[in-house]
Amino acid sequence: MSKGEMVYEGKAKRMFLTDDPGRLVVEYKDSLTAFNAQKVASMEGKGRLNNVISSVIFQYLKDRGVDNHFVRVIDDTHQEVLRVTILPIEVVVRNITAGSICKRLGVKEGLPLPRPLVELYYKDDALGDPIITEDHAVLFGWATQEELDQVKSMALKVNQLLGEMFEQVGVTLVDFKLEFGRTKDGRIILADEISPDTCRLWDKATNDRLDKDRFRNDLGRVLEAYEEIWKRLSEPKEA
Amino acid sequence: MSKGEMVYEGKAKRMFLTDDPGRLVVEYKDSLTAFNAQKVASMEGKGRLNNVISSVIFQYLKDRGVDNHFVRVIDDTHQEVLRVTILPIEVVVRNITAGSICKRLGVKEGLPLPRPLVELYYKDDALGDPIITEDHAVLFGWATQEELDQVKSMALKVNQLLGEMFEQVGVTLVDFKLEFGRTKDGRIILADEISPDTCRLWDKATNDRLDKDRFRNDLGRVLEAYEEIWKRLSEPKEA
Repeated sequence: MSKGEMVYEGKAKRMFLTDDPGRLVVEYKDSLTAFNAQKVASMEGKGRLNNVISSVIFQYLKDRGVDNHFVRVIDDTHQEVLRVTILPIEVVVRNITAGSICKRLGVKEGLPLPRPLVELYYKDDALGDPIITEDHAVLFGWATQEELDQVKSMALKVNQLLGEMFEQVGVTLVDFKLEFGRTKDGRIILADEISPDTCRLWDKATNDRLDKDRFRNDLGRVLEAYEEIWKRLSEPKEA
Repeated sequence: MSKGEMVYEGKAKRMFLTDDPGRLVVEYKDSLTAFNAQKVASMEGKGRLNNVISSVIFQYLKDRGVDNHFVRVIDDTHQEVLRVTILPIEVVVRNITAGSICKRLGVKEGLPLPRPLVELYYKDDALGDPIITEDHAVLFGWATQEELDQVKSMALKVNQLLGEMFEQVGVTLVDFKLEFGRTKDGRIILADEISPDTCRLWDKATNDRLDKDRFRNDLGRVLEAYEEIWKRLSEPKEA
């Protein structure tokens, strides 16, 4: 599989054409950004960690019926994925309050929610990815109601499966962000990445942050936290 | 009915106890504020106009089955209302895009929506009244799902009735904000005010702004616009 012309460069990834029009190669970069790219850094090895972490997670989800774009790992920083049209909507699922919701709504951090909360954000850097309702998405043509119903139901399924996966390795899944894509035949599948860049992951025993909040909030040992997540996910588990 | 102790002072109104524990007196002030009170002014006669405009609108809605707090006009700037506990949620109904939604979501002003859009905002000045979803309101205890269902259905009914009322006097109802209250016996009723302070009203023929946007955007002739709305609403109509 050849790595052809670059078709997209984002804050943490580059995407390249391949000789198969239905597939792309994703390169995970070492860059870290936060607060809508107002804070930027690069950490050697971060790309490799997110590539392998996201790969095992997408494979785990695919094995459990969550249709997604992951095809295979190519090497340390590259993976092959199905080519989709990304919906302009970020889907956030929250189990415990943290981050933007606390600032936005004045609620305390660390509040367990009685049920998972699904939030939608309109993907637009210039607007600062504003939160939206399903009605906004439908009325402004960003997704159909049927697509949103499917996206929400998939997001909740991912939450349940990921929660179990992390629970088994002593990690609390606080919240995470998903993106979805439309395939050529109109199916909605999970896309983008799932990694410590896109999840809040707290050590179950110590509440230690094992995610990008270490970078956002200058907590230090950023890469060590990503390594720790990879170590726990890749270790053989007891049956 | 005596005007007793002041129990609330907001940006545009004061509320006073009466000798009936179930009723309050509302005084409409001449002050005008915008952008979360960053812009402030006072215009003599504004309180009177909003008092009489809101009164005829609430009476019109009550006559058509929208349960609300309005009891009677007392004088130029005072009215008597039922005492309720205001839900900490502002309900905005939009028929045409204008104002905050354009800035927030990058959509053009003046776009007619294929159906009315209902938005909820958490009433908190310090947070800048952030937009929320129904899930936020329920999960953080600001309203029950049953209350929200009722609030939304009442807001859409108000939109239909108000739209007809203004249509008859050559005014386009672009959008408006409502507040609701809980009565002692747990009913949800419409409260607060409906006036050029809380609606966007465009002249049907000229698209002239006849509402608080004249103040927000320094268009001049603010009070004349409020007078014009009052004139049109109070003139005898053809059958």
